Amino acid sequence: MVLENPLAARSRLQAVPVVPTTSRVRGIDVGALRMDAEGFWGRRQTVNAAATLTHCREWMERLGWLTNFDRVARGEALETRTGWVFSDSEVYKLLEAMAWELARQPDDELETTFSALVGRIARAQDADGYLGTAFGHVGQAPRYSDLSMGHELYNMGHLLQAAVARARSGHPGDELVEVARRAADHICREFGEGARDGVCGHAEIEVALAEAGRAFGERRYLEQARIFLTRRGRGTLPVPPLLSAEYFQDDVPVRDASVLRGHVVRALYLSAGAVDVAADTGDTELMNALERQWENTVSRRTYLTGGMGSRHQDEGFGDDWELPADRAYCETCAGVASIMFAWRLFLQSGDVRYPDLIERTLFNVVATSPSADGRAFFYANPLHQREAGTPADDGVNTRAEGGVRAPWFEVSCCPTNVARTLSSLSAYAIALDDDGLLLLQYAAGEVQAGGWQVRVQTRYPDEDRVLISVDDAPADASRLRLRIPAWAEGATIAIGDTPARPAEPGWFDVTGASAGTVVALTIPRQPRLAFPDGRIDGVRGTVAVERGPLVLCLESVDLPADVPLEGVRLLPGAPTAAGDGARAAAVVVDPASPSAALPYGPTPRAEIAARSMSVTLVPYHRWAERGPSRMRVFVPLAHPSAQRG
Amino acid sequence: MVLENPLAARSRLQAVPVVPTTSRVRGIDVGALRMDAEGFWGRRQTVNAAATLTHCREWMERLGWLTNFDRVARGEALETRTGWVFSDSEVYKLLEAMAWELARQPDDELETTFSALVGRIARAQDADGYLGTAFGHVGQAPRYSDLSMGHELYNMGHLLQAAVARARSGHPGDELVEVARRAADHICREFGEGARDGVCGHAEIEVALAEAGRAFGERRYLEQARIFLTRRGRGTLPVPPLLSAEYFQDDVPVRDASVLRGHVVRALYLSAGAVDVAADTGDTELMNALERQWENTVSRRTYLTGGMGSRHQDEGFGDDWELPADRAYCETCAGVASIMFAWRLFLQSGDVRYPDLIERTLFNVVATSPSADGRAFFYANPLHQREAGTPADDGVNTRAEGGVRAPWFEVSCCPTNVARTLSSLSAYAIALDDDGLLLLQYAAGEVQAGGWQVRVQTRYPDEDRVLISVDDAPADASRLRLRIPAWAEGATIAIGDTPARPAEPGWFDVTGASAGTVVALTIPRQPRLAFPDGRIDGVRGTVAVERGPLVLCLESVDLPADVPLEGVRLLPGAPTAAGDGARAAAVVVDPASPSAALPYGPTPRAEIAARSMSVTLVPYHRWAERGPSRMRVFVPLAHPSAQRG
Repeated sequence: MVLENPLAARSRLQAVPVVPTTSRVRGIDVGALRMDAEGFWGRRQTVNAAATLTHCREWMERLGWLTNFDRVARGEALETRTGWVFSDSEVYKLLEAMAWELARQPDDELETTFSALVGRIARAQDADGYLGTAFGHVGQAPRYSDLSMGHELYNMGHLLQAAVARARSGHPGDELVEVARRAADHICREFGEGARDGVCGHAEIEVALAEAGRAFGERRYLEQARIFLTRRGRGTLPVPPLLSAEYFQDDVPVRDASVLRGHVVRALYLSAGAVDVAADTGDTELMNALERQWENTVSRRTYLTGGMGSRHQDEGFGDDWELPADRAYCETCAGVASIMFAWRLFLQSGDVRYPDLIERTLFNVVATSPSADGRAFFYANPLHQREAGTPADDGVNTRAEGGVRAPWFEVSCCPTNVARTLSSLSAYAIALDDDGLLLLQYAAGEVQAGGWQVRVQTRYPDEDRVLISVDDAPADASRLRLRIPAWAEGATIAIGDTPARPAEPGWFDVTGASAGTVVALTIPRQPRLAFPDGRIDGVRGTVAVERGPLVLCLESVDLPADVPLEGVRLLPGAPTAAGDGARAAAVVVDPASPSAALPYGPTPRAEIAARSMSVTLVPYHRWAERGPSRMRVFVPLAHPSAQRG
Repeated sequence: MVLENPLAARSRLQAVPVVPTTSRVRGIDVGALRMDAEGFWGRRQTVNAAATLTHCREWMERLGWLTNFDRVARGEALETRTGWVFSDSEVYKLLEAMAWELARQPDDELETTFSALVGRIARAQDADGYLGTAFGHVGQAPRYSDLSMGHELYNMGHLLQAAVARARSGHPGDELVEVARRAADHICREFGEGARDGVCGHAEIEVALAEAGRAFGERRYLEQARIFLTRRGRGTLPVPPLLSAEYFQDDVPVRDASVLRGHVVRALYLSAGAVDVAADTGDTELMNALERQWENTVSRRTYLTGGMGSRHQDEGFGDDWELPADRAYCETCAGVASIMFAWRLFLQSGDVRYPDLIERTLFNVVATSPSADGRAFFYANPLHQREAGTPADDGVNTRAEGGVRAPWFEVSCCPTNVARTLSSLSAYAIALDDDGLLLLQYAAGEVQAGGWQVRVQTRYPDEDRVLISVDDAPADASRLRLRIPAWAEGATIAIGDTPARPAEPGWFDVTGASAGTVVALTIPRQPRLAFPDGRIDGVRGTVAVERGPLVLCLESVDLPADVPLEGVRLLPGAPTAAGDGARAAAVVVDPASPSAALPYGPTPRAEIAARSMSVTLVPYHRWAERGPSRMRVFVPLAHPSAQRG
C-alpha cells in the first residue's frame, strides 16, 4: 500500500531527510540552502566533503570492516571477522553521508566511490534479503541469536537510512535502494506480527523503517516500525551482565515512560522513531508522551552544551540532576540523535524550543567533535578536563577522553554520524509551512525552497547581524518567520528602511514578504553568565559563560604557567567580549593541600585570593585544538570574601 | 630455603594474617582479642560466623561455582562452566574466612564443612599443581591464554591466602596447605625467571606468594612475588577494548608511580604485595615510593568514608579531586584492600595515620556493606543516592547501586571479602612492638598477646569512654600505647586515680603498665562538620557531619513526606547529638524548576527558604536498612541569605 499524502509522495523525489505523512512544518531539500563556503557551517561542510568522507572510508578499509562484506560475498568462514558486530553500520552511515553530499553537490569521483561501495555490500546480501557480516554465515553464530547485543537490525536500519537518502536524491532505482528494500522485506517477514517476537537491543530500525516506508511508499515498513515500538518495554531482551533492561529502554513501554533513560543514543533513536510512528498513525497519546519525555529530559538531564548522558558505565543518562562536568559523557552520537528527535517533534508542533535546542547542540556538541581538518574526533564531550591526555600511538583511541581528538575509535560511531549530519545540515536550518518560510538556523547562503529565493548574509555566530534578502516569495505563503533564540537579549529587527524594533525570543514573523524585502536581524552577542540549577551537585557554586549560541570554556593553555586551572575563581559581574570569546574578572586561589591528610576538614577551607587577573574564555567547540589541555566550562565562583580583597 | 628471622618462624604457628620478616610492629593472633559479642564488631563477627559463611557457601553451591571443581575432578567437558572466570576465588576467600573463624573459635561442624570443601578443591588440582576451573581442561581455552582477564593467578593467589590462614591456625599439614604448596610450586616453575614472562591482569598473587613464603618457610615464593612485581608496569598485558594499561597498573612500574590509579582493588592488592616484597627484601626505595603513593592517594583520591574509587566504567580511581558523592563507587572490596595496604605500611612504620584510615574504612565501608542479618551486601558504597531502587527479583544483583543490599552478585567478590575481614578482624585491632602493646581499634573484649592480659570495656563508638584494665603485662615491654584518633577533640586519659589529662590525636603512651593498671580513655563524640577541599567539584558548597569514627548521612525516611531530600540546606553551626546520630539546623528550599527549559539560567537561582527545621542524621553504615531510601552524606549549605531568614 502506498502512502496517500500527496505531499509525502512528492517529497519522495526530494532530498529531504524526514518526511512525515502529516506535519505542521515541512523540511527542505539538503541542497535547497547552499551555504557560503566561508561560513561557520559552510566551512565544515567543505571539510566534511573534502576530508572526512575519505578519512572514514580509508579507516574502514584499513581495519577490514569493508573486507568483511567481500568475505561474506565469497562465502569465506568468518570466525576471524574484524571489528565489533556493529561495524557494518559505519559503512552504511558513510553511504548515507555520501548520498546527502551527492545530493548537495554532484561529484563524479564520489559517485564512482559510492557505487563501488554499494556493489560490495550488495554482493554480501543473502538471497532472502538478510544483510550482515557478523551472524549467520560460515563459522558464525546464527542470525538473531543475540538480539540484545548483536546489532543486526540496528545495522540494517542504517542501511535503510542510507537508501532513503539515495532514493530521495534522484536515484529511486539505485542498487542500494533495491538492497535496502530486500532487507526491509526480510525484516517484515522475519519479525512481523505472528512471526519472531523480538526487538533489537539497539533501537534504530524503528526510525529507519518509518522513513523507508515513506520514501519507498511501503506502508508496511511503517507498520513494522510500529510493531517493534510496541514490543519494546516488556523486559523480553536478555540482559547482559552489569547492564539492565533500562539500558535498552526495555523496562517501560515507550508510551508509558516519563523521561528518557538508559543508553542515551538508543533512547534517542527510539524516540525519533516513536515520533515517526505517532505522526503517521495519528497516535496523539504517544506524541504527547514523547513531548513530555523530551521536556523532562531537557530540563533535568541535559548539559549546557545540549549534550546528554553522564554515565560512562553504560553510556547512559544518569538520574535527574546527575550532570557532573568532569564525567559528562555527552557522546557525539547522542548529540546527533538528540537533533533527530527534536527535529521530528518540531515538524509536528512547530514549537521554537526544538530548533533552540538543535542550535545549542549543533554549535556545542556536533561542532566540537571534529578537528578543524575533519580527520580526528571527540567521542565523548566532557565539560571539564582535569588531566590532559596524550594521543593514541596507533591513532585508534578508546573514547578520546583525554582531551585529544582521535582519528578513529574501536567503537567508531561518531565520525560517520558527524559526516552524515554535516552533509545534510542545510535541511535542518530552513523549513516551510503552509504560511511561508521559517529560518531556524542562521547560516550565510542562498535558499531556494517552496517558491522562495532568499539570500542570508552573516558571519553568525561571530557577528551580531543577519541580513536576509528576499529575491522571490510565493504570493500565497509569504510569511517569513525568524527564530529569535531563547538566549537572545536585546535582539532587534529592521524591515527595509523601517526603524529597528525589539524582537523577543521566539518567533518573529515578517508578513507579506516579496521580492525586494530586506530584513536586518541583530542579535547582540555580549557574553553572558549561565548559573546551574541548585540541584546539579556536580557544578554547585560555579558559573559558565556563553556568547551567542556558543558555550565558552577556560583552557589551561590560556592561563599563565603559574596559575593552575583549579585555582581560578570567577568574580561576579558581566564578562566582556574578547575575540570570539570573552574575558572575565577572576582571582587565583592557592589550592595546595596543607598536608597529606584526607581532603576534608573541620572548617571551610579559606580560599585566599593570591592575585587578581582577568581570564580568557574561548568557544568550547574549539577546545584542545591547540594540543592536549585541561579545561573547564563551569568555573567556581570566588567566595564573597575574595571579592572584597 | 627457610626464612631466617626467628620471630617470623615462630609466628608461622600463630594465626596472624601478616607476618613480615622484619617489621617495627607485629600483628597478633586472630584469637588474641576475644571481642564481646554485644560490641559493635563482636556482633558483626557473630553474625558473620552464624549466617554469612553459610550464606556464601549455599549461594556458590546453588550457582554451580562449587560444582565447577567437581566437574574438573571428573574430567568433564566444561564449555558450559558457570560463573565468571574468577568464581574459584570466591570459594577460596570463603575458605580463608572459615579458617580464620576456626582459629578464632573452634567449631566441629564448620571444621567438617571446611574439610569437605577442601577435598572437592583438592580433587580438581591437576597433577602438576595447576588449579583452576576456567582454563586448560576439556573444552576450555588453554592455561594462561588470557593473562589480562583470565584471573588464573588471581584465583590461585586467594587459594594461597586461604592456605596461609589454615597453616597458621594449627594446621600446617592440612590438605589445603599441601594443595596450595603444589600450586605455588607450579607457579614458580611456570612464571619463574627465564620461564613464562607474564603477570596476571588482576594483582593478588604477589601479596599471596609473599605471605605463603613466610608461612610455609619458602623464600622462593617471595622471590616469585618480587619477580611478578618487577615485571608489571611495562605495558605487556594486552589491553581489552575500552580499558587501558593503567587498569592493570601495567602503565608504570610500581616503584616509579606517584599515586594509585586504574582499577582500585587491583591497585591496592598490588600495593599490599609490594610492601611485603619491599619489607622482606629491604628495598627502602620501593617502600618510600609506596608510602608516597599512599599519601597522594589518601589526600586526593579518597572519600570521607575511607572509600576509594569514583569511576564505575573501569571500577577505577578517578583523577585527583574526582570524588563525586553520587557516583562514588567505593567498592566494598576496595575498602578491604585499602586496609590490607595500610596495615602492611603500619607494620613497617608504626605510623598512626594507617590505623586512623583503617578505622575510618572499617566503620564506614566494611561495616556498611553487610545487612544486619549478614545475608545481603552493598557492592558499591555511594555517598549520595538520588533515586531509591528496588530489590532484585532473583536475589542476584548487579552492584546493589539502588540503595538495596543484595544477597548475591554476578561478580560476588564482596560477601566473601567482608567475611574474611570480619573473621580476622581482631588481628587489626591490637599490635605489639618491642616496647609493649598497641591498642589500635577500640572494641570491648579481652586481649591475650605477647605476655599481656588486658580487658577493654566500652560501647565504642556509641560511648565516649574506653576503660582498659591490665591484668598482666610483661616486665620488659610494659608500655601500653593508645591511638587517639585524628578526629578526636578534647580526648582525655586518666590512669588509675590520677586526674584526667588531655590526650592529643596520635599516640598516647602509658609507660610501666602492670597488673592492676587501669586506664580510662574518654573521646568526646559531639557531632562535627567535615568540609570538603575546594578542589572537589562534586561536593562544592556542601558539608558532611561525622560523629566519632562514624560518617553520618541524611536519609529520606527521616524527612517529613513533604520535604524533598534535594531541598534540604544545612545552616552553619554545630550539629547536636541525637541517638547515635545528630540533629542539625536546616532550611528547606523549593527546588522546583520554573519551566521545562534547560536547568541553567542567567542569574543564580535564588533559593528561598520555605521553612526552617532540624534534620536527623544517622550513621552511614546503617543506611537503607529501613528499606530503599534516598540519601546524602554531603548536604548543601544554605546560602548566607537564607541564614538570616
